[in-house]
Amino acid sequence: MAAKDVKLLGTRPSSYVNKVQFALNLKSIEYEFLVEKLPEKSELLLKSNPVHKKIPVLIHGDKPVCESSVIVEYIDEAWSDAPSILPSHPYERANARFWAAYITDKWFPLLRDFRTAKDEESKAGVLEKIFEGLTLLEGVFVKSSNGKAFFGGEAIGYLDIVLGSFLCWVKAAEIMAQVKLLDETKTPALVDWAERFISHEAIKGVMLEPEELVIVAKTKHAAAAAAAAAAASK
Amino acid sequence: MAAKDVKLLGTRPSSYVNKVQFALNLKSIEYEFLVEKLPEKSELLLKSNPVHKKIPVLIHGDKPVCESSVIVEYIDEAWSDAPSILPSHPYERANARFWAAYITDKWFPLLRDFRTAKDEESKAGVLEKIFEGLTLLEGVFVKSSNGKAFFGGEAIGYLDIVLGSFLCWVKAAEIMAQVKLLDETKTPALVDWAERFISHEAIKGVMLEPEELVIVAKTKHAAAAAAAAAAASK
Repeated sequence: MAAKDVKLLGTRPSSYVNKVQFALNLKSIEYEFLVEKLPEKSELLLKSNPVHKKIPVLIHGDKPVCESSVIVEYIDEAWSDAPSILPSHPYERANARFWAAYITDKWFPLLRDFRTAKDEESKAGVLEKIFEGLTLLEGVFVKSSNGKAFFGGEAIGYLDIVLGSFLCWVKAAEIMAQVKLLDETKTPALVDWAERFISHEAIKGVMLEPEELVIVAKTKHAAAAAAAAAAASK
Repeated sequence: MAAKDVKLLGTRPSSYVNKVQFALNLKSIEYEFLVEKLPEKSELLLKSNPVHKKIPVLIHGDKPVCESSVIVEYIDEAWSDAPSILPSHPYERANARFWAAYITDKWFPLLRDFRTAKDEESKAGVLEKIFEGLTLLEGVFVKSSNGKAFFGGEAIGYLDIVLGSFLCWVKAAEIMAQVKLLDETKTPALVDWAERFISHEAIKGVMLEPEELVIVAKTKHAAAAAAAAAAASK
């Protein structure tokens, strides 16, 4: 598959884009990375994802595929001769999809709630929920990995790339809030897993460094504040 | 597969439960329907879905599967010898998953926004979005069905059961708001599709009648109002 046949529209700080990059790397698929300069959107993005107008979009040949979870399953199915990302057994597949949705829709948004919490009491409440979630996921890891390196067993699988795609934002949040989220005493297996995941050949170099994300977050925050101030002074 | 091997925890007015029932019927899987008496939750529900504590839950043998979209894909994969629900080609599967997420996460919630809109102006705004969505879906239907009866072609498929599971609530909303949502002049192909879908052997009798759902909605609304009044008078 030549690189020109597969294009990915995205930005480097996006976990959802990183997730797709992991899947492409794991399948050894060459691709062209077309960087979007948000908040402006390219003509190609608007044409390829007219419903949501969001990254990531994978373009395979001339066919666009949108939404990161849909794209990852598409990659797994369209390149079925490469090692599979989802487990093979229907029940394990269902479990992986269930926990992927939990991580994406329930757990990761807690990091935003933590950042935007109004006072110390609600901040502490959200932090407790973040740890509860990580404890749940520690249990899922121990059960799924069955003594092996990854949620997927010996090889990186679906849950690895879903949780893994958020790791750099977790580390950025740790820096910004000066709090340890992935803690050796609370969730030792996840801490070790995160180290192994980040240093894996298919993963390293894809995500920005946590310090770079902190700058991204602060720039975004400043831009939003400036826009709000401008709107308020109209 | 004896009925006792497959149990479904749910309630009859839930579209998410209906969707799973459609999938089971299409695969000719016998199942035992265990009705939950919400807002109370059975021990079995709490044990089977400890994370979300929500219906539907499918129990296959002794293994619980939660979240309606995860359950439908599980049914399709675990009973792979029966006619498949999702399309077979990866790109068509991706398309089906994309539109299923659109219907579930973006379009159907507009019905609730319509019901709870504060004034006539915002009501009209939401109504316009509902029609825009239906026009999009009319286009998806014309393209996917390719002149055949269903989104899935000759047979009912994934998008049919996802959109179809919301049909009775659409009709209930039409009665309550005295407005036509599925309109022959605006979306003629969807209107015909809805008729065919509802009278299909695997579908009819599963969903409550729209008039019954109106009563369910009013009872729920009255209970919520009573609870709010009780809380306010404390």
